[in-house]
Amino acid sequence: MPSISPSRRTRSTPFTERVEACGVSAYTVYNHTLLATAFRSVEQDYWHLKQHVQLWDVGCERQVALCGPDASRLTQLMTCRDLSRARVGQCLYAPLVDEAGGVLNDPLILKLAEDRFWLSLADADILLWAKGLAYGLGLKVHIDEPAVTPLAVQGPQSDALMAKVFGESVRDIGFFKFSRLPFQDAAFVVARSGWSKQGGFEIYLDRPDLGAALWDALWEAGREFAVAAGCPNGIERVESGLLSYGNDMTRANNPLECGLGKYCHHERDIEFLAKPALQQITRKGIQQRIMGLRIDAQALPPCRDTWPVMHNRLSVGQVSSAVVSPELGAIAFAMLKSEVWEPGQRVQVMTPAGDTHPATVVDLPFI
Amino acid sequence: MPSISPSRRTRSTPFTERVEACGVSAYTVYNHTLLATAFRSVEQDYWHLKQHVQLWDVGCERQVALCGPDASRLTQLMTCRDLSRARVGQCLYAPLVDEAGGVLNDPLILKLAEDRFWLSLADADILLWAKGLAYGLGLKVHIDEPAVTPLAVQGPQSDALMAKVFGESVRDIGFFKFSRLPFQDAAFVVARSGWSKQGGFEIYLDRPDLGAALWDALWEAGREFAVAAGCPNGIERVESGLLSYGNDMTRANNPLECGLGKYCHHERDIEFLAKPALQQITRKGIQQRIMGLRIDAQALPPCRDTWPVMHNRLSVGQVSSAVVSPELGAIAFAMLKSEVWEPGQRVQVMTPAGDTHPATVVDLPFI
Repeated sequence: MPSISPSRRTRSTPFTERVEACGVSAYTVYNHTLLATAFRSVEQDYWHLKQHVQLWDVGCERQVALCGPDASRLTQLMTCRDLSRARVGQCLYAPLVDEAGGVLNDPLILKLAEDRFWLSLADADILLWAKGLAYGLGLKVHIDEPAVTPLAVQGPQSDALMAKVFGESVRDIGFFKFSRLPFQDAAFVVARSGWSKQGGFEIYLDRPDLGAALWDALWEAGREFAVAAGCPNGIERVESGLLSYGNDMTRANNPLECGLGKYCHHERDIEFLAKPALQQITRKGIQQRIMGLRIDAQALPPCRDTWPVMHNRLSVGQVSSAVVSPELGAIAFAMLKSEVWEPGQRVQVMTPAGDTHPATVVDLPFI
Repeated sequence: MPSISPSRRTRSTPFTERVEACGVSAYTVYNHTLLATAFRSVEQDYWHLKQHVQLWDVGCERQVALCGPDASRLTQLMTCRDLSRARVGQCLYAPLVDEAGGVLNDPLILKLAEDRFWLSLADADILLWAKGLAYGLGLKVHIDEPAVTPLAVQGPQSDALMAKVFGESVRDIGFFKFSRLPFQDAAFVVARSGWSKQGGFEIYLDRPDLGAALWDALWEAGREFAVAAGCPNGIERVESGLLSYGNDMTRANNPLECGLGKYCHHERDIEFLAKPALQQITRKGIQQRIMGLRIDAQALPPCRDTWPVMHNRLSVGQVSSAVVSPELGAIAFAMLKSEVWEPGQRVQVMTPAGDTHPATVVDLPFI
């Protein structure tokens, strides 16, 4: 592939110098920010992630901060997940859905205080959505994108490494919970979360001047655990059933067909934008659903766009992400029509190279 | 630089196959879409653009379409430029500004009908801003991102090439005007516009299935003019004083300090969001302004982030884009404080390599 062209517009982070010193080999752009996609190779990075511990510059997970008397109301208006019982110190995976039922993002919402939230975003300018709603509805809420750049520590040795830098109390942080832990003269939000299923933490750096020091402290402490630079891994995330906004779901999809039904609380007594649309979709029933595919193939081209899924010469869906897993072989996410979405169903996947591969529908996650 | 990683999320366009067949060497991502930044080299592309004619895949200029009874009102609410006398068939360069006076984008607005507009966008999800405002204010307007991908024809031979494909009437299209011209069984909006000062057109392809045919027709007709694939050129656009949203201005800037005062109509009897903020900024006077710099340097590193501008050991501003022009030498855009913004002023530019270069403030554009 061609190289990526540097500019201020595709922002660097406080960790970029370290990422490049570690030999990043490929980037993407995510929330107008550089995001590494490979160091040695996606497959080598995959094995390392599953065995050791990695530092990931996920500064591209930009935060939209909502603060003020109407912050709680606006946050709830944007998501179909019931936030009424959320507690301070909790991270909540929460689809953001528009008034037509279209998914706009799928952030983690961090409840920092009763009147203060961070939306840790997938790739879209939700700042503009929140600002537009707040202005139009006349809400009393301050909305901004603070200088917060998360650093993820992921992999089975994450607890051991983090305990060396942040103290043993880090082990007590529950899944999708966060604490504020000291580092030098600062204190960072540290959450047990991250975009892999290998365990780990995300450290919400809000002091850009300490970025290099934080990286270096984790790096030094991590030598005994074979720490390496890493990034969200294209293979591991498909194996683990982690959907990517913009790849596996877009504004054209509703959360119910994306397998996010357990976060859709349109039957509860709460107010949010998508409620009437989701009620209507539930009455009609969904027409398609994201499922897994096990593809009969030894190799696949890069999945740069959707690939048609066929059955009896008719289009019955589309693949949105496809990888060859060293452990599972060729696997994919596919949005499938109801006539073929049952596990065990056989279908055909057409790749851009012109090949047709048989495939079997399976439940998610793969592992 | 590392390579760019392909995915559905960083969208391809109907022209991407042709762009890659022509040997694109570097990409950026713009509006979640691939945008070429170099083919042979930025300097070789520069000379070719100034002498011949190029095809640019600017499908990343995504359109936000506003349609309906309140489309005109919402479009005006978003921009500080007076649209009251805009006519159908006109393209209007129009800063979008929020209620605090911050620039959110600087699209061309195409007035397709009295109740129908396209915002041909710089890099930000203005769809979400427009949708948020419309929902909050209860406006009757349909907002969408249609499958429109512009192809630009730029360079001194643009008229001759376009006349061969679209007929002689293309020569009659005035600057920043558009007509709908036939191509095969379709008709495309064709505007005399584009992100260079070398002359040319933008063809708003709204039939993705005809993308390859359109490219090929222009390519065949262009052989006699030495047509080549090109892209917005980093050197030419700085020479010509074309600001890049996200590079040279952000939401932290107001349009007055960005040299966009002639598009700020906050003294007129029109209603838009930024009006009170711009009135207040005008009363106080701006504190900084984008100016040109001629830098005493033979070579510069890539401008990946802002560079400090110093005077008497004090910070007096920042460079946002810097290039070495074959014709003008080292030049840059810089946001400068009032004490140094007068043309002729000498300042120092500090590059990330640690070098300090003397520079002279000059008016824009350079050419």
